[in-house]
Amino acid sequence: MIILIQSVDRVGLVADVSAILAKSGLNIVSLREFVDKSDNRFFMRIAADNETEPIALETAIREVLPPDALVSINPRPDKKIVVLVTREYHCLADILVRNQFNTLGATVQCVIGNHPHLENICKRFNIPFHLVSHEEGDKFYFEGRIRELIEENGPDYIVLAKFMRILSPDFVAAYPERIINIHHSFLPAFAGGHPYRQAFERGVKLIGATSHFVTNELDEGPIIAQQVIPVNHTYTATDMMKAGKEIETSVLARALQLVFSDRVFVYRNKTVVFE
Amino acid sequence: MIILIQSVDRVGLVADVSAILAKSGLNIVSLREFVDKSDNRFFMRIAADNETEPIALETAIREVLPPDALVSINPRPDKKIVVLVTREYHCLADILVRNQFNTLGATVQCVIGNHPHLENICKRFNIPFHLVSHEEGDKFYFEGRIRELIEENGPDYIVLAKFMRILSPDFVAAYPERIINIHHSFLPAFAGGHPYRQAFERGVKLIGATSHFVTNELDEGPIIAQQVIPVNHTYTATDMMKAGKEIETSVLARALQLVFSDRVFVYRNKTVVFE
Amino acid sequence: MIILIQSVDRVGLVADVSAILAKSGLNIVSLREFVDKSDNRFFMRIAADNETEPIALETAIREVLPPDALVSINPRPDKKIVVLVTREYHCLADILVRNQFNTLGATVQCVIGNHPHLENICKRFNIPFHLVSHEEGDKFYFEGRIRELIEENGPDYIVLAKFMRILSPDFVAAYPERIINIHHSFLPAFAGGHPYRQAFERGVKLIGATSHFVTNELDEGPIIAQQVIPVNHTYTATDMMKAGKEIETSVLARALQLVFSDRVFVYRNKTVVFE
Amino acid sequence: MIILIQSVDRVGLVADVSAILAKSGLNIVSLREFVDKSDNRFFMRIAADNETEPIALETAIREVLPPDALVSINPRPDKKIVVLVTREYHCLADILVRNQFNTLGATVQCVIGNHPHLENICKRFNIPFHLVSHEEGDKFYFEGRIRELIEENGPDYIVLAKFMRILSPDFVAAYPERIINIHHSFLPAFAGGHPYRQAFERGVKLIGATSHFVTNELDEGPIIAQQVIPVNHTYTATDMMKAGKEIETSVLARALQLVFSDRVFVYRNKTVVFE
Repeated sequence: MIILIQSVDRVGLVADVSAILAKSGLNIVSLREFVDKSDNRFFMRIAADNETEPIALETAIREVLPPDALVSINPRPDKKIVVLVTREYHCLADILVRNQFNTLGATVQCVIGNHPHLENICKRFNIPFHLVSHEEGDKFYFEGRIRELIEENGPDYIVLAKFMRILSPDFVAAYPERIINIHHSFLPAFAGGHPYRQAFERGVKLIGATSHFVTNELDEGPIIAQQVIPVNHTYTATDMMKAGKEIETSVLARALQLVFSDRVFVYRNKTVVFE
Repeated sequence: MIILIQSVDRVGLVADVSAILAKSGLNIVSLREFVDKSDNRFFMRIAADNETEPIALETAIREVLPPDALVSINPRPDKKIVVLVTREYHCLADILVRNQFNTLGATVQCVIGNHPHLENICKRFNIPFHLVSHEEGDKFYFEGRIRELIEENGPDYIVLAKFMRILSPDFVAAYPERIINIHHSFLPAFAGGHPYRQAFERGVKLIGATSHFVTNELDEGPIIAQQVIPVNHTYTATDMMKAGKEIETSVLARALQLVFSDRVFVYRNKTVVFE
Repeated sequence: MIILIQSVDRVGLVADVSAILAKSGLNIVSLREFVDKSDNRFFMRIAADNETEPIALETAIREVLPPDALVSINPRPDKKIVVLVTREYHCLADILVRNQFNTLGATVQCVIGNHPHLENICKRFNIPFHLVSHEEGDKFYFEGRIRELIEENGPDYIVLAKFMRILSPDFVAAYPERIINIHHSFLPAFAGGHPYRQAFERGVKLIGATSHFVTNELDEGPIIAQQVIPVNHTYTATDMMKAGKEIETSVLARALQLVFSDRVFVYRNKTVVFE
Repeated sequence: MIILIQSVDRVGLVADVSAILAKSGLNIVSLREFVDKSDNRFFMRIAADNETEPIALETAIREVLPPDALVSINPRPDKKIVVLVTREYHCLADILVRNQFNTLGATVQCVIGNHPHLENICKRFNIPFHLVSHEEGDKFYFEGRIRELIEENGPDYIVLAKFMRILSPDFVAAYPERIINIHHSFLPAFAGGHPYRQAFERGVKLIGATSHFVTNELDEGPIIAQQVIPVNHTYTATDMMKAGKEIETSVLARALQLVFSDRVFVYRNKTVVFE
């Protein structure tokens, strides 16, 4: 049984919550707690190896928490996702393979692409692929079609697996803390569209990738995971891009694993990750 | 205020302990808890940003715990260490520099060497250096002299900073979970005395170092920290040793930082590290 | 144009070879050279950005080299591989995806499994899968069937992508320096069959994976690439195995990339890798 | 014997140079060569395990190179450095320890600080410390005093070991490719003065450090080495700074090791590093 709590902090919160858990006979296997002192914000993740009635438990827990607290008991274990892509295959293929072998921690409902390139790989895994070209209408129309498809599927999360269009504030606002992106650089270095070209010009010795929740500030949403790999003077901009794809695949997989196992809390522009 | 607890697990432990903390008005900043299910063993580290009377607190906590529980309230903040060395300077110098600038998290009381090589660097930092040669008498005599010096100083921990003599079971038994070693390889690969030669012969592409508590099984004590660095075919055995020294210095520093900040629990042959 | 040379070393080798290249009008983009002093062994890899007639070039180069020198001009660019698997999908799926998108650096001819589990994923990518059960006959019969399939395909390399049977000396001798394995540990730690159980029991803080050429010494062949990832006390043996699969996939991909781009020389029990 | 060459590229350069080396009886142990195709620029580093008369060799080599080529035969092996510091001890202490034990690859002639904080540690190692306060006069006067001290010592390199004043274009121009800085972030992220505060606000999961040659573009000079370490939500800005100091020490040490072993070429705003 998984219990997630986020609220304003006060003395005795852990005691009050854990007393309820003990009264319910729950055996805590892992308890992670963090207080962001600068914001007086309390975060807690509890894993118990047995179960109790969740609605009664939530009610009991809410009674000891401040009114605006966020509580989640056994967040949906069979999470569903819709994946948005453009042309690059590496992140999508990794997701499809894990989906196929039931190790993704979520189920891929469908893939939406603004180019037809990745339809074939989706078909190989019997995953519906919807082509929504950004050239058919204006952005409003384009995003409207994507939102229709998302609404039909009702996913928990929307994963941007190298989706190269910038989403409008309206779109982003419709799915707060539910859109996960992989950015092709070690943010905040090289924000924007051509990070490998920039990295090459700058002669960096490491390149990185960043997975983050999407907000309306481009490339500025809460960071979930980051990784780097070494490069050197022999790397052309293309070589850096190739090396970058490896690390993009890896860091998005890691971020999804963390999010899908309910280990990531979002508050303001940061994450608390109980690895 | 720091509270450390290790005991047999049971339902309600977190609740009972945290109720006591709340009653004492302690504001928990960070709570880390882990249950080793295979051993039914409970570990907890609590950091509060205010204080209460420690003896009364310990008494209250012990009342709710199984009889053999280990409880430590505010473990000595001004820890003291004795450092044992042979000839190599890199780990000792790093410790002496941090000691000098009060960033070690402990105070170096003295250094004991079985060779005179490192007396000079100790003098530069006004740290007493005691030469105890292993050639003056037998092992019993040798270790007896070292133990006298340790007893005079009464350190919390004994740090083997590239001390190249194997300590007897009697010696080790006198300081359980208090002797910290840096081993010059990625254990359990290359246990024993010539790991860099072995690594070179094997053509490995990474070399590592391991810091661990010392037990009577050579190189088999509970591991605190491990790190690796890449090497390649151009490295001679000597080059690997040089690269290894860098990583030895780094991993011992990290292990000491973890131990001195009371983040490491030992149980059987493993550690629980609340980083 | 790629030129690979391995031979006994002597003064003037670089000069003699590069004079031939200059006379042929080749423009050297990258020259890597290494002399293993302990063995007096010379290794060179040259990349030129233009071409010349390869047979005449090889003849000219061989004339200035010791008789037993190994020379390879433009090693087959369209390399072919046969992949051997058992039950685990992660390495195979990664190879199939890269094969599908032409980024593997080689072509997968077929997959041979001693269990039927991975037939489905092969079918999705239209790659022939051959089931050769180790239970149908003795080891001689089992390996005979596999060798027949290999001979039918004539691959450059045989990739053991989590193939869990130990190959006989005869089998290994038939494909010297052509069988690439991924071993599920940081060799030489935890050689043998249950490394994650061993790593868990030992309480390590890093786990690794090793890709190596297969020789008749179990897990002792020349190492191509190694990587590690951090683990901690919360990892069960199963968690370590899961984390290990990620690093196994990554390190095998890296090793294949190096081998398929003709950057790996083998000599005795080591590799020279011109990354 | 070490030979360094940088020039415009042309066909046959390697052949012509290596023919000269062979004629001189030099036995090449390691040859590294790189051509930057975008700039048609040639870089070569040769290590031989015997010697020949250097002036004749340089003359012979220059004869086959374009007129503006840079050639360096046996670059000064006993390099000398002057270290500039402000208040932070970690990089300086690491340099002083290596200097003391002859493992720095250079000799520290003196340390110049704009605060008196680090005089004590210099005295412990008998290294002259010169206080040049930036408050005594204007920048012109301040830098004038520092340059006088540098001129008195005639160092090969000037190492900014956490020197927190921005040097003027005149100062920088006086020591082209000879001033090495450690920047407290993973450039180009967080250029400027408060990177750890910025990293904390941004909620990054990795922090880094960059060592680079100083040019007149602030934090924009050719990068020599970069490293990162993981951080998480529990890190305050101060914790990030502490973790950053560890990586700063490590990356500056690495950069100095590369520069002092003559493995770093500078061209325009990048480095070629033959590790």
